Amino acid sequence: MPMKRSERLVAMTHFILDRPRELISLPFFSEKYDAAKSSISEDLGIINKMFQHEGIGYLESVSGASGGVKYIPAFSKEYSEEFVHQLCRRLEDPERLLPGGYLFMSDILGDPEATRSIGRLFASAFRDRDIDAIITVATKGIPLAYAVASYLNVPVVIARRDPKVTEGSTLSINYVSGSTRKIQTMVLTKRSLKEGSKVCIIDDFMKAGGTISGMKNLLNEFNAEVVGIGVLAEAEDEDEERVVDDYISLVQILNADDRKGSIEVIPGNLLNYL
Amino acid sequence: MPMKRSERLVAMTHFILDRPRELISLPFFSEKYDAAKSSISEDLGIINKMFQHEGIGYLESVSGASGGVKYIPAFSKEYSEEFVHQLCRRLEDPERLLPGGYLFMSDILGDPEATRSIGRLFASAFRDRDIDAIITVATKGIPLAYAVASYLNVPVVIARRDPKVTEGSTLSINYVSGSTRKIQTMVLTKRSLKEGSKVCIIDDFMKAGGTISGMKNLLNEFNAEVVGIGVLAEAEDEDEERVVDDYISLVQILNADDRKGSIEVIPGNLLNYL
Repeated sequence: MPMKRSERLVAMTHFILDRPRELISLPFFSEKYDAAKSSISEDLGIINKMFQHEGIGYLESVSGASGGVKYIPAFSKEYSEEFVHQLCRRLEDPERLLPGGYLFMSDILGDPEATRSIGRLFASAFRDRDIDAIITVATKGIPLAYAVASYLNVPVVIARRDPKVTEGSTLSINYVSGSTRKIQTMVLTKRSLKEGSKVCIIDDFMKAGGTISGMKNLLNEFNAEVVGIGVLAEAEDEDEERVVDDYISLVQILNADDRKGSIEVIPGNLLNYL
Repeated sequence: MPMKRSERLVAMTHFILDRPRELISLPFFSEKYDAAKSSISEDLGIINKMFQHEGIGYLESVSGASGGVKYIPAFSKEYSEEFVHQLCRRLEDPERLLPGGYLFMSDILGDPEATRSIGRLFASAFRDRDIDAIITVATKGIPLAYAVASYLNVPVVIARRDPKVTEGSTLSINYVSGSTRKIQTMVLTKRSLKEGSKVCIIDDFMKAGGTISGMKNLLNEFNAEVVGIGVLAEAEDEDEERVVDDYISLVQILNADDRKGSIEVIPGNLLNYL
């Protein structure tokens, strides 16, 4: 028995939300839900209208024989601003201050709801860039990288500080950590990234930018092109010039001083990209 | 202007899917969508019916003054069986064999769609356990831990092999790695887990079970109770007895031999828990 429209809308909404950026054809829906193409077309109109109304993105129509619709997650500026401001307030807690001007953020990085929202904001900001993969370096950027990747529907590649036996052969580079000035190693499994990929770097924290600059060098070895850089939090670095520019940040940490117990957190530049 | 039912169903479906295991009250929906409680009640009936029809779970009704509905992700046995069998075929590729009987799985762990499905299956298998947090040890289990956590709506806690300056004070233990017989360290930030938490351990791979047994010891120090253990792949270990029992596995790796190029992958015991 065919479904009623009301029932079909529930099923289709789930199906579409579950497949961001995947092209789904009208005939596919028509067969799956045993409904005329004209009905499916009306359904998609309602879904598109409501996605925009709810501020979660829109359905992009692709015309032609192999056409259909794609759900493009693009979260509203209103939603994004509210989330960023809440995050600033949550981070602006002197109890988070750690020696060296670092900030305890593991609770936020460990909260799937927060990481999902962070992923949404970056995916929205990067929505028009042509991205093949997200890359991060272990450990703390990993949940953010997955959150972004799941809304952009691309794989995640994880660079490590140490090679592991269960990874196969690797490519490695040395780089200078911005904050500690120590020489560090970064490795990436050879078969984890195709030559010539367009990648977006995601990380939790950037001070001088040494780690991200290291990732860029490593990606160079794979002839990969960096088409975007996103960091959750950027912090001031008094000692040196930042080695990375052209990045998107969610928040900016100012005047973090664990001795004085002072800290200020303000929105980063991400909101300008929405 | 109030929404039409068809429009409301799209909005409500998204709202509910986005908040697994969160109690949402009828009056809340009624106000949010400017609709009578009786209409909302009917809508929830349709959504519940369709979620079950699609095999993605159900709405649990909580009665009483502070009542409402909760979306419980519980994926169907059919969906789960298909996914597990596909995963077995995908893993049963001799090219994945690495020295020592290990298997290259980073491509699957890097695929957000696959990790989401894995998260769904574990969340379904653990749906009746009372879980406060998911724990894993860096690095490869992290995406799986987040995927499970996002469907169970609980935080993720990550143990590390090395303490980091940006984490604050930590508790550490030493344990013997099952496969290498080396003494290893595992640390967990003190403020990352509340005393007495009920936790579920998630990891990508288990051979002798040394790492998971190490995590159990570490959790002991936090007076945490282990209420579940889930591993993506379990492998045979000829040399010794497994030190962990009572776990759920998605797949089982048999006869992996990189010299002979032979490997067999069969479903684990997870399907028995659905």
